[in-house]
Amino acid sequence: MQIIDGGVTAAAGFEAASYAAGIKYQDHPDMALVYSTVPCRVAGTFTSNVVKAAPVQWDRRIVQAGTPVQAVVVNTGFANAGTGAEGLAICETEARAAAEALGLDNPDSVLIGSTGVIGGRLPMDRIRAGIEALAASRAHTKEAGTAASKAIMTTDTRNKEIAVSLEIGGKTVTLGAMSKGSGMIHPNMCTMLCYICTDAAISKELLQKALSADILDSFNLITVDGDTSTNDTVLLLANGLAGNPEISSEGADYDAFCEALRTVTQSLARRMAGDGEGATALIECRVEGAADKQAARTLARSVVGSQLVKAAVFGHDANWGRILCALGYAGVSFDPLQVDIALADGSEEFCLCRGGVAADYSEERATELLGREEVVILARMHQGEAAATAWGCNLTLDYVKINADYRS
Amino acid sequence: MQIIDGGVTAAAGFEAASYAAGIKYQDHPDMALVYSTVPCRVAGTFTSNVVKAAPVQWDRRIVQAGTPVQAVVVNTGFANAGTGAEGLAICETEARAAAEALGLDNPDSVLIGSTGVIGGRLPMDRIRAGIEALAASRAHTKEAGTAASKAIMTTDTRNKEIAVSLEIGGKTVTLGAMSKGSGMIHPNMCTMLCYICTDAAISKELLQKALSADILDSFNLITVDGDTSTNDTVLLLANGLAGNPEISSEGADYDAFCEALRTVTQSLARRMAGDGEGATALIECRVEGAADKQAARTLARSVVGSQLVKAAVFGHDANWGRILCALGYAGVSFDPLQVDIALADGSEEFCLCRGGVAADYSEERATELLGREEVVILARMHQGEAAATAWGCNLTLDYVKINADYRS
Repeated sequence: MQIIDGGVTAAAGFEAASYAAGIKYQDHPDMALVYSTVPCRVAGTFTSNVVKAAPVQWDRRIVQAGTPVQAVVVNTGFANAGTGAEGLAICETEARAAAEALGLDNPDSVLIGSTGVIGGRLPMDRIRAGIEALAASRAHTKEAGTAASKAIMTTDTRNKEIAVSLEIGGKTVTLGAMSKGSGMIHPNMCTMLCYICTDAAISKELLQKALSADILDSFNLITVDGDTSTNDTVLLLANGLAGNPEISSEGADYDAFCEALRTVTQSLARRMAGDGEGATALIECRVEGAADKQAARTLARSVVGSQLVKAAVFGHDANWGRILCALGYAGVSFDPLQVDIALADGSEEFCLCRGGVAADYSEERATELLGREEVVILARMHQGEAAATAWGCNLTLDYVKINADYRS
Repeated sequence: MQIIDGGVTAAAGFEAASYAAGIKYQDHPDMALVYSTVPCRVAGTFTSNVVKAAPVQWDRRIVQAGTPVQAVVVNTGFANAGTGAEGLAICETEARAAAEALGLDNPDSVLIGSTGVIGGRLPMDRIRAGIEALAASRAHTKEAGTAASKAIMTTDTRNKEIAVSLEIGGKTVTLGAMSKGSGMIHPNMCTMLCYICTDAAISKELLQKALSADILDSFNLITVDGDTSTNDTVLLLANGLAGNPEISSEGADYDAFCEALRTVTQSLARRMAGDGEGATALIECRVEGAADKQAARTLARSVVGSQLVKAAVFGHDANWGRILCALGYAGVSFDPLQVDIALADGSEEFCLCRGGVAADYSEERATELLGREEVVILARMHQGEAAATAWGCNLTLDYVKINADYRS
């Protein structure tokens, strides 16, 4: 498997487009289209929030029904959440317009993604015009994929795309993806949207199984602010154009596909955390020696989710007591006197706490490590063999400024 | 029942003292003593954090053993958490020193409270000198109680004390209390410390029962930052000097005591939330029509705990979508299309969202209501009859500044 240049259009048969429809703001692209020249099997994971945006309800119904899919239409500006029955009708109108513009028979072959303010109404005239412009300008080029990944940004400061290729059954299989997400990020599948397009031939059942397993150690292990969005959506579309023998049972080919998927999702997840609203540093927490895998995940996410740990990293303060405290309230049982806490410096470790009490360390060196763009915290629990890594970001003055102003 | 002037020394037989021991900072009081002239029954609730500070372990052992108690010694500066076996030895040293200075036979009659940085070592020479000074200067005066409530402050901007009196069996019973807490506040049975002193005669069993029930709707329904401290401690000391017939079974007298206790704890809890680090506004969320009491509590706390709701209140932005979102990820099932969200304006209501979708409201008026020092959010779930109220505070630039700098 190798990482290749490109994004959502990297796999065979996938096209993309972007357009400035003027939905909420002027002068920058705010709609994107992903299109496959042939029907795709699709797997999806969606927010666990009880309040589900209309596009989440629309997409989930189609994914569960197993309907083949050919297009995804995404807008920013408004989330189409908190819009009741009207919100769902809007999804249907969008899907019908896209089906018509793309020459598709079934509106259910069009998935919808929205992100932005909850509660506002989509300007349907602009959306309709946008859909027509997207359909007319779609292209199977790297540039079109990159432009689409920029069109779905809200408070993101960087676009996020990745592509990988691997060999399956003598054929080159490609996965290309894009995602957005910067605030209201605490996926418990996040306002994250992620679209992964592959030309692999793989059964619908294994496609969903691979995605559902994957997010437990990728998107579900990132957090920016602890707020689980109403719109979180990850879609994995597979159109089979790679021509590999169909992956229809678990084994080496399935494992290779899952490994490639993991490379895609962890890379995007990590970049979303690092690009959290106002963030100036990515915080990675690696928990080792936990009693079991779920405990390891819960502990790691508790540390990267702690407002006080995030503020300490912003202050370059080696306040390991806050890390120990966040482990302690995660809801996992352990012996505090067994816990070691360190900062990683490349492959070296810089110990802050050993056996639950302060280690003898240089504050100056700690401050230097905490000033980096990527701060890696190691927590060794000495309770078992399980490990997990979670990603978050520091809490900065800009986070507060952005979110005190966001809607207006 | 009536609220009276005073604090921790209001009830008969209770004395207090404060002292500037120079534990971490100079020039302001950092130690406090609460003392009862006769032995007390004591109830306590402590942090649910797996990492429990040494004083929490010390106090919990004594409360569980039922040992009569006569004194509580509290320091700020260091939390005596993350200090391992040495931390417990320090508690014992402090208790022995206090017992000696106060003429008590048993060190276990002395409870300990600490708050401040996790992981630092207490300067025992200064602590010992402080204990002697506290014992020598204790007094049954309102001024001594108020001074003690100031000595336990860390990042608190206001001291917190209250006293109430009621009649039980023809006798006047008094409850006086003080608390501190501003950051690392997410009590699950908070770094909150609260000491409640009453002269009521009440059985040890009912004292604990009253306190354990009370915190579910007082301290456990406040949050500042979602971080559950290693040191949270609430102690309720009863010395029986009011001379009322002992409350030894549930009934009218017990209910009257519980009501008075609730007045004390909710008042302090509300003030702690409003004095959250950097906060300029108290946020109160009243949930009505929830399916059951625990659902109501969980929903209310989710709203006041949402970083995005807190930032929106700081920005005076009527972003009701974030409120609906926070209800949605609380972990409670409900129908989003039944939810009404309003701001309270005294006894009037200002509706933002009706039936899960935007109501027609004036942004200008909403902004005005969100600019007040106390912002009251009403959420009607229409799922049942249960209600609960939780308290938090806005997320401000100063919160981040305080916590990026706190340890240094």
